[in-house]
Amino acid sequence: MGAAALRDICQNVPMTYNLILLRHGESEWNQKNLFTGWVDVPLTDKGRAEGARAGELLAQADLLPDVLHTSRLKRAILTANLALETADRSWIDVKRSWRLNERHYGALQGKNKKEIREEFGEDQFMTWRRSFDTPPPELDDSSEWSQANDPRYANLGDALPRTECLKDVIVRMLPYWYDAIVPDLQLGRTVLVTAHGNSLRALVKHLDGISDEDIAGLNIPTGIPLHYEIGEDLMPTGPGKYLDPEAAEAAIGQVANQGR
Amino acid sequence: MGAAALRDICQNVPMTYNLILLRHGESEWNQKNLFTGWVDVPLTDKGRAEGARAGELLAQADLLPDVLHTSRLKRAILTANLALETADRSWIDVKRSWRLNERHYGALQGKNKKEIREEFGEDQFMTWRRSFDTPPPELDDSSEWSQANDPRYANLGDALPRTECLKDVIVRMLPYWYDAIVPDLQLGRTVLVTAHGNSLRALVKHLDGISDEDIAGLNIPTGIPLHYEIGEDLMPTGPGKYLDPEAAEAAIGQVANQGR
Repeated sequence: MGAAALRDICQNVPMTYNLILLRHGESEWNQKNLFTGWVDVPLTDKGRAEGARAGELLAQADLLPDVLHTSRLKRAILTANLALETADRSWIDVKRSWRLNERHYGALQGKNKKEIREEFGEDQFMTWRRSFDTPPPELDDSSEWSQANDPRYANLGDALPRTECLKDVIVRMLPYWYDAIVPDLQLGRTVLVTAHGNSLRALVKHLDGISDEDIAGLNIPTGIPLHYEIGEDLMPTGPGKYLDPEAAEAAIGQVANQGR
Repeated sequence: MGAAALRDICQNVPMTYNLILLRHGESEWNQKNLFTGWVDVPLTDKGRAEGARAGELLAQADLLPDVLHTSRLKRAILTANLALETADRSWIDVKRSWRLNERHYGALQGKNKKEIREEFGEDQFMTWRRSFDTPPPELDDSSEWSQANDPRYANLGDALPRTECLKDVIVRMLPYWYDAIVPDLQLGRTVLVTAHGNSLRALVKHLDGISDEDIAGLNIPTGIPLHYEIGEDLMPTGPGKYLDPEAAEAAIGQVANQGR
């Protein structure tokens, strides 16, 4: 076949892009059942093992990232470092943004989920935890769990969140999707996004077109890469696929039971 | 004092910038006394400990990096990751470039330093190891130690090195100094550069104005941050300072004895 004929064929093959979402492994506060949000908590040993396991899954699936996007929080950064080290891709480009951070949990940050549930009751607890558009009370800047004086967010000024609902996360996350992640996909790069339960729920809500009501029921397990094939319209060509579907299913049930 | 008077004083205070150079910790091939160059060899446990120790030294000196520049080689990347994790600065921006890679050792890559010295004699060994402008023979693209098919360098095309002398390293490293590192310094960011014996010797030669002859005698120890205060003329205001001067002095003696 001549080069011209081959070019004609190739021009009619739709381009697809590879996007991999990865929620960080277990952190010390996941283990202690505390609301974490923007508090920069380290991984547990189990969380580190989850990071390495994610790298094994990427290598086995031959889904090798060309570029990494992470939040500014160490539990996501270290999960990514361990995954890339295991997949032998430590050398790829790295971009970090607060826009991929976990939802800011406001005054709940540092509080025990079980105690909050007992103190305020099931309805209030579930509203704070899963309501689409009701944020918890704001975190005071004088709190030990505040990020008001954290140098990594000094450029945000008044835009620094003091609390967020999922709707707020979507509003601040989507500009990063369009301005930073999509351009990397359009270069044909396999993109790994390592982030958090709620920033990833926000992105999956957008990608899968999940309603404001139904998103409350979506849980994303830690440490299991979720692969989307993205079409030229920048939307998935089909459902996202966990690289270890059985482990994902088992883990999703556990997340739903937090605070019990 | 009024704001206007304070501004007048501040305008006359020269700006200085903080630059920190860090050579990666011990790699598996440092330990085996092999020429490594662009071969992507992991750190030993000792090398990992050196990375963490470098982070302790940065934290103790209150020299907290705002941005990291690394080579594309995992021994530098993992050293930086461990240093930043220990200094609690994993969240900073990261930039990687092949221009910070180790010198390409050509056909010597993968060879034992002691055996090369015995086979070719002391003069040839020292010429290949320390001559400013005589590179070793080129590495053949079919070698198991070639980077000709490594995807991380696919964008280099014919610019991919097959061998390098220190002069070649300077020629390919200095554009990165001016185009990537200097702009970060000029933003007032404390810059950490984590790289290799020869890419750092190339940079130190430039910064300290060392002659082509004298650079042969300069050794940079692994894992000990080297701090430069850089003036507005983009040159050091004084000599670089190791954050652990005693350990640096002891280690410099050992490097000089490699291949013996």
